[in-house]
Amino acid sequence: MVATNKFNKSPEASTFSLSAYLKERQKLCVTALDQAIPVIYPERIYEAMRYSLLAGGKRVRPILCLATCEMTGGTIDIAMPTACAVEMIHTMSLIHDDLPAMDNDDYRRGKLTNHKVYGEDVAILAGDGLLALAFEFVATQTPQQVPRERVLQVIARLGRALGAAGLVGGQVVDLESEGKSDTSLETLNFIHNHKTAALLEASVVCGGILTGASSQDVQRLSRYAQNIGLAFQIVDDILDITETQEQLGKTAGKDLKAQKVTYPSLWGLDESRSKAQELIEAACAELEPFGELAQPLKAIAHYIISRNH
Amino acid sequence: MVATNKFNKSPEASTFSLSAYLKERQKLCVTALDQAIPVIYPERIYEAMRYSLLAGGKRVRPILCLATCEMTGGTIDIAMPTACAVEMIHTMSLIHDDLPAMDNDDYRRGKLTNHKVYGEDVAILAGDGLLALAFEFVATQTPQQVPRERVLQVIARLGRALGAAGLVGGQVVDLESEGKSDTSLETLNFIHNHKTAALLEASVVCGGILTGASSQDVQRLSRYAQNIGLAFQIVDDILDITETQEQLGKTAGKDLKAQKVTYPSLWGLDESRSKAQELIEAACAELEPFGELAQPLKAIAHYIISRNH
Repeated sequence: MVATNKFNKSPEASTFSLSAYLKERQKLCVTALDQAIPVIYPERIYEAMRYSLLAGGKRVRPILCLATCEMTGGTIDIAMPTACAVEMIHTMSLIHDDLPAMDNDDYRRGKLTNHKVYGEDVAILAGDGLLALAFEFVATQTPQQVPRERVLQVIARLGRALGAAGLVGGQVVDLESEGKSDTSLETLNFIHNHKTAALLEASVVCGGILTGASSQDVQRLSRYAQNIGLAFQIVDDILDITETQEQLGKTAGKDLKAQKVTYPSLWGLDESRSKAQELIEAACAELEPFGELAQPLKAIAHYIISRNH
Repeated sequence: MVATNKFNKSPEASTFSLSAYLKERQKLCVTALDQAIPVIYPERIYEAMRYSLLAGGKRVRPILCLATCEMTGGTIDIAMPTACAVEMIHTMSLIHDDLPAMDNDDYRRGKLTNHKVYGEDVAILAGDGLLALAFEFVATQTPQQVPRERVLQVIARLGRALGAAGLVGGQVVDLESEGKSDTSLETLNFIHNHKTAALLEASVVCGGILTGASSQDVQRLSRYAQNIGLAFQIVDDILDITETQEQLGKTAGKDLKAQKVTYPSLWGLDESRSKAQELIEAACAELEPFGELAQPLKAIAHYIISRNH
């Protein structure tokens, strides 16, 4: 398998445009996600699933998955079902996190949250439906040229990233720490390593698993993703303090309001910014062996700390 | 692969004891489920998952999965991860269905429901965690002797049975039909084919897929399961009317209270009982080609309509 994307070829490396790259990849991902869920009877559940899945968003996770697959010698086609699955899982976690019994948020990506539009019952089920589809989609849509053992490894990684050892475990500790002003750095790291980094890591690592990347390369990918995952969360915490609701498209200042311990509340804003920068540099260092092919993943890493929403 | 279980051998067929068979299988399933979820940090989520998963129950779905695998030439070992997964998915659907935003039930299997013990937030996450684990478990625990393509087929079937084309879709239509006294038989069938029969069907069919059953045999298994699934629901509706809360271990008479259309409300009790009987006979007729090996599955079918809880 050879990389087929123009962005990966070194002659153009010096003119690499991240914004054009992201725009093209977002479009590919949205098209694939749109096609993944047709609206049939009972329409309401498919509409609710589509409402949140197609509500915008940066598509960071699926784009990371596609980019890693290409960097390690694969094509967009073999990674797209997995890319869709990570976005379905991410969306499901947002729908459930926004519920009144959890974070009780009314807005997400500038739009009403799922339960505000469809009701809590349908929102819970829409999350469950997306989750079920994520696994079914990888199992049925991954091209036959990918050895079946690799597809099973992808499913195992996704399940682990989502479950009690990942997203779900991070969210439980996050809920427990709410309103506590004495949350330790260790606990804060646990929350974000599980709530944010675990699925980012799975997105990146699965892109490599699909191409049969060596275990050494998988470990490099894993460290790259853990570093950008933590940087991503630090930046999220900073933005919650410095940006307005309009820029974020979701309720701003809610961490302060909830008396949540965050990285800026532990370290201050400046120290938080420099820690995020260090993490991004460490992440990029892991990609050195991949040479010019690593350019998109490196650019995405830098984008994470420069974003303002 | 040969069947290793004593219950499958024809010399003992005439003395087959369903109650001994179910008791032994329940024990095997409970042991496997218990081992599938160790309690580690953050303990609360693992405890919540275990609370509902190990709260008793007849273990009909995993037992059907094991029985089908053995009937089609496999062993308990190759089917146990899938059997555990169907019970995890079933338990997750119960936890989410019992939530205040859904059926709002306080009791299940004679115990407080998950959200009454752990809170709504943790209950939602416990369901998500069980669901994630179900897929991870099949992907990582199914013995290597099973061709990987079959394991992917099992995962695809489980995803489909759980998602908008299965359980989730059935629950949405069920919620929409609540309080409506003009629900049609067609809608009622849709609800139960999706809410109940889909996962029973996946439990049975996956047992056959694991052994590489022919597509003709898979179709027979599918029809067997659809028939017992519908019979199971008719009997559930009958029991909701005729049994006490103590016998059911859950709130009795809730269909009447919710003004739900049920099979007895459409057909009356006698007609409902005879329809259930017909479905069981049709189910058993599908198993004729399997001869004596079909005895456990036939006995389970008859058990479904004779149960009183």
